[in-house]
Amino acid sequence: MIASVMMSDLSWDEYQRRIADEDAIVLLPVGAVEQHGYHLPLGTDWMMATYMARRAAENVGGVVAAPITYGYRSQIRTGGGPHRGGTTNLDGLTLINLVKDVLKELVRHGARKLAVIDGHFENRFYLDEACFLAVRELEYAGITDAKILKMIYAEDIKPETLETIYAGKTYPGLDLEHGGILETAMMLYCHPDHVDMSKIPDEDLPKFPPYDLFPVDPDWVPASGGLSSGKGSTVEMGRLLVEEFVDLVSTSLSKEFR
Amino acid sequence: MIASVMMSDLSWDEYQRRIADEDAIVLLPVGAVEQHGYHLPLGTDWMMATYMARRAAENVGGVVAAPITYGYRSQIRTGGGPHRGGTTNLDGLTLINLVKDVLKELVRHGARKLAVIDGHFENRFYLDEACFLAVRELEYAGITDAKILKMIYAEDIKPETLETIYAGKTYPGLDLEHGGILETAMMLYCHPDHVDMSKIPDEDLPKFPPYDLFPVDPDWVPASGGLSSGKGSTVEMGRLLVEEFVDLVSTSLSKEFR
Amino acid sequence: MIASVMMSDLSWDEYQRRIADEDAIVLLPVGAVEQHGYHLPLGTDWMMATYMARRAAENVGGVVAAPITYGYRSQIRTGGGPHRGGTTNLDGLTLINLVKDVLKELVRHGARKLAVIDGHFENRFYLDEACFLAVRELEYAGITDAKILKMIYAEDIKPETLETIYAGKTYPGLDLEHGGILETAMMLYCHPDHVDMSKIPDEDLPKFPPYDLFPVDPDWVPASGGLSSGKGSTVEMGRLLVEEFVDLVSTSLSKEFR
Amino acid sequence: MIASVMMSDLSWDEYQRRIADEDAIVLLPVGAVEQHGYHLPLGTDWMMATYMARRAAENVGGVVAAPITYGYRSQIRTGGGPHRGGTTNLDGLTLINLVKDVLKELVRHGARKLAVIDGHFENRFYLDEACFLAVRELEYAGITDAKILKMIYAEDIKPETLETIYAGKTYPGLDLEHGGILETAMMLYCHPDHVDMSKIPDEDLPKFPPYDLFPVDPDWVPASGGLSSGKGSTVEMGRLLVEEFVDLVSTSLSKEFR
Amino acid sequence: MIASVMMSDLSWDEYQRRIADEDAIVLLPVGAVEQHGYHLPLGTDWMMATYMARRAAENVGGVVAAPITYGYRSQIRTGGGPHRGGTTNLDGLTLINLVKDVLKELVRHGARKLAVIDGHFENRFYLDEACFLAVRELEYAGITDAKILKMIYAEDIKPETLETIYAGKTYPGLDLEHGGILETAMMLYCHPDHVDMSKIPDEDLPKFPPYDLFPVDPDWVPASGGLSSGKGSTVEMGRLLVEEFVDLVSTSLSKEFR
Amino acid sequence: MIASVMMSDLSWDEYQRRIADEDAIVLLPVGAVEQHGYHLPLGTDWMMATYMARRAAENVGGVVAAPITYGYRSQIRTGGGPHRGGTTNLDGLTLINLVKDVLKELVRHGARKLAVIDGHFENRFYLDEACFLAVRELEYAGITDAKILKMIYAEDIKPETLETIYAGKTYPGLDLEHGGILETAMMLYCHPDHVDMSKIPDEDLPKFPPYDLFPVDPDWVPASGGLSSGKGSTVEMGRLLVEEFVDLVSTSLSKEFR
Repeated sequence: MIASVMMSDLSWDEYQRRIADEDAIVLLPVGAVEQHGYHLPLGTDWMMATYMARRAAENVGGVVAAPITYGYRSQIRTGGGPHRGGTTNLDGLTLINLVKDVLKELVRHGARKLAVIDGHFENRFYLDEACFLAVRELEYAGITDAKILKMIYAEDIKPETLETIYAGKTYPGLDLEHGGILETAMMLYCHPDHVDMSKIPDEDLPKFPPYDLFPVDPDWVPASGGLSSGKGSTVEMGRLLVEEFVDLVSTSLSKEFR
Repeated sequence: MIASVMMSDLSWDEYQRRIADEDAIVLLPVGAVEQHGYHLPLGTDWMMATYMARRAAENVGGVVAAPITYGYRSQIRTGGGPHRGGTTNLDGLTLINLVKDVLKELVRHGARKLAVIDGHFENRFYLDEACFLAVRELEYAGITDAKILKMIYAEDIKPETLETIYAGKTYPGLDLEHGGILETAMMLYCHPDHVDMSKIPDEDLPKFPPYDLFPVDPDWVPASGGLSSGKGSTVEMGRLLVEEFVDLVSTSLSKEFR
Repeated sequence: MIASVMMSDLSWDEYQRRIADEDAIVLLPVGAVEQHGYHLPLGTDWMMATYMARRAAENVGGVVAAPITYGYRSQIRTGGGPHRGGTTNLDGLTLINLVKDVLKELVRHGARKLAVIDGHFENRFYLDEACFLAVRELEYAGITDAKILKMIYAEDIKPETLETIYAGKTYPGLDLEHGGILETAMMLYCHPDHVDMSKIPDEDLPKFPPYDLFPVDPDWVPASGGLSSGKGSTVEMGRLLVEEFVDLVSTSLSKEFR
Repeated sequence: MIASVMMSDLSWDEYQRRIADEDAIVLLPVGAVEQHGYHLPLGTDWMMATYMARRAAENVGGVVAAPITYGYRSQIRTGGGPHRGGTTNLDGLTLINLVKDVLKELVRHGARKLAVIDGHFENRFYLDEACFLAVRELEYAGITDAKILKMIYAEDIKPETLETIYAGKTYPGLDLEHGGILETAMMLYCHPDHVDMSKIPDEDLPKFPPYDLFPVDPDWVPASGGLSSGKGSTVEMGRLLVEEFVDLVSTSLSKEFR
Repeated sequence: MIASVMMSDLSWDEYQRRIADEDAIVLLPVGAVEQHGYHLPLGTDWMMATYMARRAAENVGGVVAAPITYGYRSQIRTGGGPHRGGTTNLDGLTLINLVKDVLKELVRHGARKLAVIDGHFENRFYLDEACFLAVRELEYAGITDAKILKMIYAEDIKPETLETIYAGKTYPGLDLEHGGILETAMMLYCHPDHVDMSKIPDEDLPKFPPYDLFPVDPDWVPASGGLSSGKGSTVEMGRLLVEEFVDLVSTSLSKEFR
Repeated sequence: MIASVMMSDLSWDEYQRRIADEDAIVLLPVGAVEQHGYHLPLGTDWMMATYMARRAAENVGGVVAAPITYGYRSQIRTGGGPHRGGTTNLDGLTLINLVKDVLKELVRHGARKLAVIDGHFENRFYLDEACFLAVRELEYAGITDAKILKMIYAEDIKPETLETIYAGKTYPGLDLEHGGILETAMMLYCHPDHVDMSKIPDEDLPKFPPYDLFPVDPDWVPASGGLSSGKGSTVEMGRLLVEEFVDLVSTSLSKEFR
């Protein structure tokens, strides 16, 4: 069979061997199916989370579990909102149980070093709950030596990187970086055939009030669904960002597990 | 009976009258019972959320529902973690259902203008889910004209306010402002008999890595539980902040509902 | 900080100290937001439960956790029904999970002597379930030495007290004592500024059939929502009742825990 | 096929015919599998509930759905407690969902007149919730003309009947009538081959405090599990009680549905 | 009391004695209330499951718990579909929790040899889940020596039996044997007064496509609801089948438990 | 962007256009991460389900939603059991909610023609429930014109195909075809670099009794985890099967939707 760090590509005995003999870290990528403007694909979040998990697994000796492709409900001020076409929202409880079940199973397989790699901002607290509940239920079953690291792969960006990329323009913050320069650049680097720069529109940036409304007011979000513009993104920016994040994830894993 | 904007203080007919005749906005404060260092009480979050809801209700013609005193599980990098003594964590599903049930009932009473005032950072996405599900289930019952505004009362702070308060020091960000200057100052102003400035320790600020661990590593958090120091807080700072936030909440409500 | 038995008023270290050093009983008041006729406030149940918990805590060395202000769905023959304005009903599952979560957390804090003080008749079996499930899940986590006492604070009334208060009239039973003489008298004693005796109407008492209907028939309940009349209540009656119940709760706690 | 009012005995078309042509009331008996002392069988509650439903159905033109044989968790002061051998407790949520699902299906079949006949005291509030939720979800599906009557078949006992039966002795109340004179007499009348009078022990009656403990203290309950003695029960007493209750249920159904 | 293997007929102490002294296997029959054509009753599945459990219990030393009369949602290609009159469907979660709760209680009573006897095809995977979850939660409580055998009583049919019964005609498979020759014959043998052979219609057999549709298309199923014809069934065929299945269940139990 | 029928590859507006302008069928592949012997990868089920969905989508004008990679708990007699290394089991409720949420969202996007393509036998009844509940909740929201087709892609195999492939040997049935000739051949054809024929062991086929045990007895399953042997599989057999199944799925979709 092909050489791979992807659990789905491995036979069960090879997977078990990596845990038993190589003390493999098992990484679970969690993303979303969510609109990312006209120029990026709906799968951006889970594709990027899977990419990061794979690269980090290659760096630190890991296996990447099958990605969780759907994520928590998009919020209007961070992902354009749950009402958008294509955006495919899970209820919070569904995501919690899904991630919890998978984590518990990975531990049953023998893994004790686990990581959840998040590619969708709104997943954040739901992944916290999933990890917490997995640990609690494992404890019920007498297993207390499993350790789960959870992170948004882009949790931290070096100021100098932002400076290079934004070059005088204002960084809108990770929240608003939905379909914006960072995501666009990273996709250009990792999945160039999934980006169509020509489709980025000229739109006014949304100005969100300091609250949310339910039901959402669709007028808060530009027609494209992007919360900031991806214009000006380049493969080179993508390389800079992606390699920094691969390093961030790998270093985090190494620090806790190696 | 006493004059009051608190729903719990009103007879049911008076409460109904305010909705029917005065088009009252019904505000639901949601907080937490969570450690806030040695110098602030466990009830800080729900007390402050209730305070803000009351002040805003007085400004905009509202009624404040009984506060939800318990909140979502404290996270280590924003509230010191779920493992701390005194911190009393609800499961995510519990909080979602609790807030959802109450919101649906308020709508059944006739309220169509509702607000959820959040005083605990970790509640954020769980309140989003509660509001979303309330709207969805109300829709099942044929009610589509209710509108819920949800906000962290401190969602937005004016740069000049931060400058005045931090005066040269670095603002650690709202995440780390747990038991810090802002919260301490606000409590000094609103609940002075619940603050003991003499108990603020000299501690190194925590330096969190860009990830979470499950189970948590207790060593990440200073002994007091505070994530930044409340030293230097004054009643005057508290007044500045509180009045700004009361204004922020009131203005937000007015903009959407008046 | 102020001297207090209320957990919300204490810093976490002081709260922990009371459990560790003073073997404090931790009491959780559970009430409801429910119509109580024209003359009593919507918060009657949770205010009275909190009052009783506080008084008992002062007597027996206890700490009172933040009250659970919302309760189980009002039933027509005991609380006027779920359909009434102002009555704010939780689903049964919501209340079970809420109380269960809080109880488990109090045990995590180190408390082993716990009490649930119920001020709302309909909570009864749901609190049983919450306590049972808390014990079961604590047992899963290996904790088997926690003990929870659960009671309606007015579970038992001395015949002579009833005789004094009803003085020749028939006691309608605790079920129908909704907004009636007992509750009115107790509120006059504990929260006099929350009672308006002038608003008690002349109404025929409801005569309930020996069954319930779903959906409810609103005509079963008098317009005011009271199931018996509060007329004739006095502060003195309130004193008699309240002190008896404070004694009942305190004695119960002492018998099991001291 | 045999003549029957039991839904399980009917072919589907005959069942449908009774609803469509005879406007049949559909009755759902709910009982429990619970210890009832040495002299009564574990199935007492569901057998008696089914008996009552059948007799009433014959009186008022009804069909009896398959009985729900398991009930809510036995409580120590009303059923001897959940810890007893043979007592088979459902979680509250399980019973709620079970009864709710069945009720919704009966309505889908075309029934609009429904009755839940309860033979187990602890089911009370859980059946309330089940009925309420069934109505709520039916409303979501656009069905608003179904009506559910819910009653404990022994909800009301004529004072003269109690006088005849207790003849000078004190009636302990329905709560404590667990395995006592009433239940024993009724079983002697309805299911004589399921009673062994010789096995009733001489035991002191329990004296319960005005609270519950979790976990329960097994010493609160006599060894037999009965909360009062069935001694002195006769078939004649059973006849008196059973016919009164059959009449109570039938009259209640007629009043609401005929 | 009557001699019986039915748990509902036994006093609690006799039931406990059989487990403790006779090492009784406790069998839980699970059926359904589901249309079975014009000629068989709605209770066919739970009546047959209970029959099989009773016969096997008599053979191997068992006690039969109160039957679970309702089952999982009927599917169109195996039971005629959930939309049929009289068919009374539980949600999957409801059935899982119901069976799980009962199994856990039986184990709490001391039983360590348990069997779930399934009489309704659609229950299959839901009973798997219930058994799995019961074992998992018992493990949380430290109980690891309970063993549950689960089977459809008709899981296996000897080819020679099919040959005898179908005598040249094609066996449609267990899936389509809904209201067909096998079930009809068995009911003729076990419950002859519940069969009306004269009501079996002449209908074309359904030809199902290799998929399901949601919502179902009612035209897929013949008017009677039967998926194959019961014509030609005889008591003798019933005897052959029933005794073979009684033997299959008994032998299976003996192999694992005796 | 690349030409694709995969929803994750499309921008949201292109996806919406296909539904609106091309009346696209939206297909949701559901698989599992499950051991498939030494010679096939853990992702076999979701990879094959996704393959089938993609091929059918290309044939009938469809879009393939992001695959659900995890499935319901493996059963010992159909998938080798939940206890095996690498097999990653979801709880039944988790899978139900996951598929239900996604289906409802696809309908919200405007899709009215949906298909669930199942590649894992144990998912069967859980997918039924998910589809049923999705339809029910959509009906609550007033949407009644969505239609979901659900099938196991290998639901039907032509006798002549089996004859060709098994050529004199006995077809073990789809249940036991776990890691056997069919799956191996199909993977050789679709994902040749994921098969290692040299790793297929010589093992005795399992002989399962007509029941299940909980907990499972690991000895029931051969060491490799395969329930029948993949030996003798060829690419050509794979082609025969895969093209037949692609045709089966495509024809089914066309029949209902085109």
